Amino acid sequence: MSAGTIHGVGLGPGDPELMSVRADRLVRSATHVAYFRKAGRPGRARAIVEGMLAPDAIEIAMEYPVTTEIPLDDPAYADCLSGFYADVSGRLRALAEGGADVVVLCEGDPFFYGSFMHLHVRLKDHVPIRVVPAITGMSAAWTATGMPVTWGDDVLCVLMGTAPEAELARHMADADALVVMKVGRNLPKVRAALDAAGKLDRAWLVECASMDEERVIPLAQAGDRKAPYFSIVLVHGRGRRP
Amino acid sequence: MSAGTIHGVGLGPGDPELMSVRADRLVRSATHVAYFRKAGRPGRARAIVEGMLAPDAIEIAMEYPVTTEIPLDDPAYADCLSGFYADVSGRLRALAEGGADVVVLCEGDPFFYGSFMHLHVRLKDHVPIRVVPAITGMSAAWTATGMPVTWGDDVLCVLMGTAPEAELARHMADADALVVMKVGRNLPKVRAALDAAGKLDRAWLVECASMDEERVIPLAQAGDRKAPYFSIVLVHGRGRRP
Repeated sequence: MSAGTIHGVGLGPGDPELMSVRADRLVRSATHVAYFRKAGRPGRARAIVEGMLAPDAIEIAMEYPVTTEIPLDDPAYADCLSGFYADVSGRLRALAEGGADVVVLCEGDPFFYGSFMHLHVRLKDHVPIRVVPAITGMSAAWTATGMPVTWGDDVLCVLMGTAPEAELARHMADADALVVMKVGRNLPKVRAALDAAGKLDRAWLVECASMDEERVIPLAQAGDRKAPYFSIVLVHGRGRRP
Repeated sequence: MSAGTIHGVGLGPGDPELMSVRADRLVRSATHVAYFRKAGRPGRARAIVEGMLAPDAIEIAMEYPVTTEIPLDDPAYADCLSGFYADVSGRLRALAEGGADVVVLCEGDPFFYGSFMHLHVRLKDHVPIRVVPAITGMSAAWTATGMPVTWGDDVLCVLMGTAPEAELARHMADADALVVMKVGRNLPKVRAALDAAGKLDRAWLVECASMDEERVIPLAQAGDRKAPYFSIVLVHGRGRRP
């Protein structure tokens, strides 16, 4: 029996109509569908494909043992996640070796800060694996603002809100256009870094881009708002435009 | 009569199956389809949708008066393009005011270094306009390399090969992951800047990502290769990976 293929399928930013034609086809025809989720939650990736799966599709929920309970820089965090990824990779590998094709649902684009990467690195030398790129959350975010993000020779810098404030501020000062992901509880730090870089007045907070709950707010007016983890902060470039 | 809507529809990197479900639907049902092209060429955006248009769809080819004949920094270049964008915006506006919905075909993502932005800025205050985001060429490029582009808190910097070499080298040295677009004739400059930043040995040249002609080459082995204008140079990040 030949091995099945693991498909890392990017679902895009959340609106099911923003899935690619290929992703739509793979999801609807899948016999085995795997997805990450926080224990006790339905799962954001699974929610995007609600109503699309075949009635007899076998679902594999991969439940994170930890998300924000342990600080990112605590070695226990990496150990815990590493064991988890090894475990679920083993389950998917066994399915593929048994001949099953498995569609792994990925929010956003799988190879752009995606959880799927941690499966990919553990599976790629053992079973066939294919990746379907997708519309990123940041594309949906700048589209939601109704303004192009980059013009001419603008330099775009993509930053994680989890990085140290001084590092954020340095990059923010040096680039023309900015995207900050993983904002959530880091919002006050992100705001302070933008202020230090002199760009707070041009920044936008975009929550739930492309989804029903989409909100676009000038960051300076966001106050003490609790931003969802997947919020994105944007600064538009102002380069050459004939 | 109510005005029609101008739809800026991102088609993604080139593979028609990587169009979004929404883009696919809008393109197939369009009554009026507009697209940029170089005079005398079929047009790259138009080529992506070959075979998808309704038989009676009205096509509006918007032919660039100039592409690389005049240097980017020559004021005549901006004047020439500005007049062109004003002219074609006027044609699309007249169609919309006459009640027609117009689908403007856009390679890549419309608001990410896209030509459509120059129509959008001239039309948005006059007629209804909607934008469909898309998979970027850079997403297709890093997917083609078979390696994730960013991990953990990696900083990603997106640069244009048209920028000055010193500026390229400075940003290349300061970021973890790199994307360089608009490579083409700028390839020797991009290579020199990567060498100065100490990252040439980790760089990849990706041509025609997602298309039949897709090629992935270590940049240090690309020699004097004439890279197509839409080639992308990539350096992968090496951040936290549990």
